[in-house]
Amino acid sequence: MQEIAIIGIGQTKVQESWDKSIREIAGEAIFAAMLDAGISTADGLFIGNMMSAFTSRQENLGTLIADWIGLQGKEAFKIEAACGSGAAALRMAISAVSSGEMDTVIASGVEKMSEISGSEITAALAAAADADYEAIHGLSFVALNALIMKRYLYHFGWKHEDFALFSVNAHSNALSNPYARLHNKISVDQYQKARMISAPINLLDASPTGDGSAAIIVTSKSNLSNFNFSGKPIIKIIGSASATDYLAVHDRNNPIWLSAAEKSAKRAYAQAGVSPNEIDFFELHDAFSIMAALSLEACGFANRGEAPRIALNGDIQPSGKIPIATMGGLKGRGHPVGATGIYQIVEAVQQLRGTAGTTQVENAKIGMVQNIGGSGATIITHILKAD
Amino acid sequence: MQEIAIIGIGQTKVQESWDKSIREIAGEAIFAAMLDAGISTADGLFIGNMMSAFTSRQENLGTLIADWIGLQGKEAFKIEAACGSGAAALRMAISAVSSGEMDTVIASGVEKMSEISGSEITAALAAAADADYEAIHGLSFVALNALIMKRYLYHFGWKHEDFALFSVNAHSNALSNPYARLHNKISVDQYQKARMISAPINLLDASPTGDGSAAIIVTSKSNLSNFNFSGKPIIKIIGSASATDYLAVHDRNNPIWLSAAEKSAKRAYAQAGVSPNEIDFFELHDAFSIMAALSLEACGFANRGEAPRIALNGDIQPSGKIPIATMGGLKGRGHPVGATGIYQIVEAVQQLRGTAGTTQVENAKIGMVQNIGGSGATIITHILKAD
Repeated sequence: MQEIAIIGIGQTKVQESWDKSIREIAGEAIFAAMLDAGISTADGLFIGNMMSAFTSRQENLGTLIADWIGLQGKEAFKIEAACGSGAAALRMAISAVSSGEMDTVIASGVEKMSEISGSEITAALAAAADADYEAIHGLSFVALNALIMKRYLYHFGWKHEDFALFSVNAHSNALSNPYARLHNKISVDQYQKARMISAPINLLDASPTGDGSAAIIVTSKSNLSNFNFSGKPIIKIIGSASATDYLAVHDRNNPIWLSAAEKSAKRAYAQAGVSPNEIDFFELHDAFSIMAALSLEACGFANRGEAPRIALNGDIQPSGKIPIATMGGLKGRGHPVGATGIYQIVEAVQQLRGTAGTTQVENAKIGMVQNIGGSGATIITHILKAD
Repeated sequence: MQEIAIIGIGQTKVQESWDKSIREIAGEAIFAAMLDAGISTADGLFIGNMMSAFTSRQENLGTLIADWIGLQGKEAFKIEAACGSGAAALRMAISAVSSGEMDTVIASGVEKMSEISGSEITAALAAAADADYEAIHGLSFVALNALIMKRYLYHFGWKHEDFALFSVNAHSNALSNPYARLHNKISVDQYQKARMISAPINLLDASPTGDGSAAIIVTSKSNLSNFNFSGKPIIKIIGSASATDYLAVHDRNNPIWLSAAEKSAKRAYAQAGVSPNEIDFFELHDAFSIMAALSLEACGFANRGEAPRIALNGDIQPSGKIPIATMGGLKGRGHPVGATGIYQIVEAVQQLRGTAGTTQVENAKIGMVQNIGGSGATIITHILKAD
């Protein structure tokens, strides 16, 4: 692939934004990214979003937002891959630049979930699963992940409490991230006593949803000389790959192995010419603590069935061997589903620029980012490098 | 852009498909296209779809369909641009091939609308417009187009009956298309007396929705030697461009001029190195008869305010100067919204292969296809050529 650089980032605080419409939230993140890049226009816009139909009764979302930000005339589409929509939009932006058709492109993700009630959100999120063979039986999205976690605990002999540090680390890292939804430190004891949602997943295993948007500006390496970076390091995308799996969990050969994560990570490693031990931090998709564990294993950071151990060892903290959720992850920053994939990229850029604040990973040069749509069905991996 | 070839086409009959789910309808078209191309797998899948959230409570649609057709592991996303979703998916497929990342890609569109009732469909279609500033006032999608048509009649002094031949031609051309929803010839008299929907748009100005899917297989020109075409002409995509406009009709400088059609057509003409008079037929987006007229004007086939005259002159018939809706168009074939853009491409390939049956355009070598999302907000133009 042609080398692509990220020249601007922007994000909004993940929260309930009762006073802003979906276009306004998206605009806020995009304008911040354009300001960061020092640009006033772009050649195209790809918006990651899963549920604007359910929550805002709005489609044609690409054009809506292009119109709002003054990009009338330019190409703009919405890209949907459930909770992986953000990274999917980035895939399309990279493709548009790699093909030579566009020079500078906005990849953004936005979700406004607070428009509808909790039970409606639960039903809408189930659209990420198989509507005809999973959701129809009343399996909510958290219930699907609970089945996976239950099987994992049974198969490898771990206890629920052994997952505590995934959530403790995420909440701790979110504390100093002003864009994070949650700013409460939690203890192992609090994790163990949290309200049950769908056994064995309790409230502190699950990420909070919310309203939010994140945006990045990408351009081709050959176009970089047109920009003034004022000393900011250039962040390059050196790996970008996507893979799918059987959508329904019951169809998979092994429900506790993320084969789409393994496939997309292997492709991204090959493109980047790096191996897992060269990755300085990993922004993974910890929608549920079990997903953090499965991602670490599928991507080669832990042996099968060993992910809880590396959490217990402290390896996932900002000072550890493979820091994850460094700005809070989905668990602490929040999970505005179609926007999450771009939040992850923005946070990886913050790390690689050395502007991640109190949770800065020391000497971070290469970061990996992984976004998941459905319970492991659509998995997109990016590897970024500070030049 | 790199030269891209269409090596396979497939489609399902537009109808109410009560016995098939959205994945089954999509699979039927994709398998037909793969059979036509003589392939058993592909590198990726881009699905155009607008309303699976509303109608099937299903998202993650790319992965769902990739799974169904045996493409687990490969990249698959849903692309949404309202009624322009089909052509938007093709844009992404072209980009994936042009960038060199994929060799052979499936671009498909699918819509299953009969799952929900008429009033729910009306509300869901309004999501193609501006939810906050148009739909909230009770403006349905047909009402928006009615306002545009009313203004056009007033401004240029045409009468409603002067639009009759757009619908008469479409119904006539659909008669021998086995995939068309409607197979009834209509007269000018019937057109004039049809039931009013939203003045001045009556039932015979409006296209019928429906369930359906169409699919094409695209590959790079350099990859063509791997295929055996058994004498079928190779159809190349020589122009592909997309443009947006203000989403809300009231924001546009001129509500009766499709500036996004003009922009995307001009870009496509420049890429293809052709002018309107070299186009042998034009598959346009006649969701409403007024849209057919506006497209003809914006793309240079009729002067401003003159489109009804070229219809009255017989120029739009298969034997005319610029045949449109040659297999029935949206009016006759039907308009399964997110699938329509790919149906149009499939039909253009049928024309260019010389397999269009009784409505074959003689010596068709270059065809133009235009897909519209929203009431003129998102417009995608492709130019195809028989090699």
